[in-house]
Amino acid sequence: MTKARAEAFSDGVFAVAATLLVFSIPIPDPKMALGSALLAEWYSYAAYVISFVTILVIWVNHHATLDAMRSFDRPLLFLNGFLLMTVAVIPFTTGVLARSLQAGQDQSAASVAYGLSAIAMSLAFTFINTYAKVRNLFTTPFSLLGYSLGQFGYPLATVIALFSWQLSLVMYAALAGFYAAFPLIREAQLRRRL
Amino acid sequence: MTKARAEAFSDGVFAVAATLLVFSIPIPDPKMALGSALLAEWYSYAAYVISFVTILVIWVNHHATLDAMRSFDRPLLFLNGFLLMTVAVIPFTTGVLARSLQAGQDQSAASVAYGLSAIAMSLAFTFINTYAKVRNLFTTPFSLLGYSLGQFGYPLATVIALFSWQLSLVMYAALAGFYAAFPLIREAQLRRRL
Amino acid sequence: MTKARAEAFSDGVFAVAATLLVFSIPIPDPKMALGSALLAEWYSYAAYVISFVTILVIWVNHHATLDAMRSFDRPLLFLNGFLLMTVAVIPFTTGVLARSLQAGQDQSAASVAYGLSAIAMSLAFTFINTYAKVRNLFTTPFSLLGYSLGQFGYPLATVIALFSWQLSLVMYAALAGFYAAFPLIREAQLRRRL
Amino acid sequence: MTKARAEAFSDGVFAVAATLLVFSIPIPDPKMALGSALLAEWYSYAAYVISFVTILVIWVNHHATLDAMRSFDRPLLFLNGFLLMTVAVIPFTTGVLARSLQAGQDQSAASVAYGLSAIAMSLAFTFINTYAKVRNLFTTPFSLLGYSLGQFGYPLATVIALFSWQLSLVMYAALAGFYAAFPLIREAQLRRRL
Repeated sequence: MTKARAEAFSDGVFAVAATLLVFSIPIPDPKMALGSALLAEWYSYAAYVISFVTILVIWVNHHATLDAMRSFDRPLLFLNGFLLMTVAVIPFTTGVLARSLQAGQDQSAASVAYGLSAIAMSLAFTFINTYAKVRNLFTTPFSLLGYSLGQFGYPLATVIALFSWQLSLVMYAALAGFYAAFPLIREAQLRRRL
Repeated sequence: MTKARAEAFSDGVFAVAATLLVFSIPIPDPKMALGSALLAEWYSYAAYVISFVTILVIWVNHHATLDAMRSFDRPLLFLNGFLLMTVAVIPFTTGVLARSLQAGQDQSAASVAYGLSAIAMSLAFTFINTYAKVRNLFTTPFSLLGYSLGQFGYPLATVIALFSWQLSLVMYAALAGFYAAFPLIREAQLRRRL
Repeated sequence: MTKARAEAFSDGVFAVAATLLVFSIPIPDPKMALGSALLAEWYSYAAYVISFVTILVIWVNHHATLDAMRSFDRPLLFLNGFLLMTVAVIPFTTGVLARSLQAGQDQSAASVAYGLSAIAMSLAFTFINTYAKVRNLFTTPFSLLGYSLGQFGYPLATVIALFSWQLSLVMYAALAGFYAAFPLIREAQLRRRL
Repeated sequence: MTKARAEAFSDGVFAVAATLLVFSIPIPDPKMALGSALLAEWYSYAAYVISFVTILVIWVNHHATLDAMRSFDRPLLFLNGFLLMTVAVIPFTTGVLARSLQAGQDQSAASVAYGLSAIAMSLAFTFINTYAKVRNLFTTPFSLLGYSLGQFGYPLATVIALFSWQLSLVMYAALAGFYAAFPLIREAQLRRRL
């Protein structure tokens, strides 16, 4: 089982999950005036964009993580599978979020559900990173500490969702930005060594 | 027709089927209280997890099997296609299972349907293994006997589903675990030879 | 634009289209007795199997055709795109067929629709083969005549569908078998030259 | 993060989005006469064909663009992600268009929505091209001016949709043709240098 194959399978799941997100945007009922119905759906578009960027960022981090490993073994294959399982569920939590925002009710519950799946996803990453660190699979020094600090973001946003779903959505978007910037550090480390 | 291409096509089907599983989790009706509706769906999440892990394990075994072959011919291409056809149907049987668990009725029939598709899948694997063994395509000695013992698991679970759907679901989860461990033996064989 | 990339994109469409076929099998209404509802759906399973095998066979032929070409140019890219467009529509015609068989009415119309999309698909193959023959892209001698004879199968089955949808379905299954055997001839030619 | 991987992920999104377009064609209600219902859906088929060709052309241009770059960096990864996000939304806008054409109302609003997503897509391409030009990533001289002229097509068609949705649909089809021809120029440039 080569690392390349795990990447190909993972890329497939990432690409399909990102493309399936579009189903979280409902096609308006043809009996309604289409223009205003489409404008009223802006919540769905926002949920689509946040989730698409989130999956894109997870994909970038996934590759940066695997690039930094000198090999890939069977336990990693299953930890990676756990990560993919949490990614593949994002079209569902995005759909739940979009529908509750549309209906104008239960936004907190929907945002908590969204946060729980993100927590599972970041847990999967922590498992992968910890396992690879312990088994000495990284080719560059890797600080679990720096990484772990970021891991508090999704739990925090999920707790906040109980009180203010608006703030929690802002945090989900901000966390995607944080994780987008994160691999820059690792890449800089890699470049210094090469 | 190279083995690499058959793998790429197979990986595509595995990745798409795994990601489509998410549609077996219904988005709750916005008129219901979302929090409790999401909690009441835990059956769907369990069906999603069992099926995702099952597809992941089939994928791992598929690659271990193909890695152990020195070549790949046209009959194998069609046996492989039969396997993929049984994998691509898993989102359907998972959806049937999730809906019957949700409705709290016909769980035995749903679990039998799930088991029948799993039997077809393990039959496809037996065909592939037997064909490759007979044509002497494996690079390492391969015991069909040891493999075949595991083949009784799904028929047994399917019969049990007629009497206790709860036990059959536990067996489906346990079989995913059994097959997850199975390729370790073959890998150990491979490593000894290299 | 390399041939490898056209193959990768095509493989993606083939794999996704094959896996989406599962949506042509409706999940029974939970209010009905599930066991008998699932048995009554055998028509959907038959439509699923015929279409899955058909896509698999198109995929095998697609690769055999591209393998026999020494290069791939832009016009071929668009002829290939036309082929993929006819493949991606198969989940729709399969769904139409399955639903009409289920409802027990309009089977002829559904079978004609299925046949028309298959005619478009085999036309796309004829375009690709003719273009490659004329531009002298095949590495082995290729008889358009032998190939073209097979091209009458789908139009014939489609006309027959007007009078007997049962016979037309048998012909669709038989044609998948015919095209499964077809590339054997080309492969034999290739082997003789190598 | 290599260019090859960005291409593989992009190809996945392109292939899945193209194949998901089929869901914009509704399976007719089995209670209606199927033959006439299928004929009455010709609008959906037209929308399917225009969108499939559009995605195919974007894919061809995407590869021509990346082939002309000597490297691929992280900002490009996110600009590329923005492009993919606009591609993945095409099944939605196509579905909206097909449904409004079917219902015979709100065609202008649907065509404007279609045009807006196409504008976002061509903006993403402009960002990618401008960034690569500024960072001197292209291996051949590349005229942003010639490219930018084409960028007025989608905004123009979108404005026209407010007055004549029929003309705007013709323009969307024509623009797919224009962009299909566009990379010929770049390829000719490439060939001259090699």
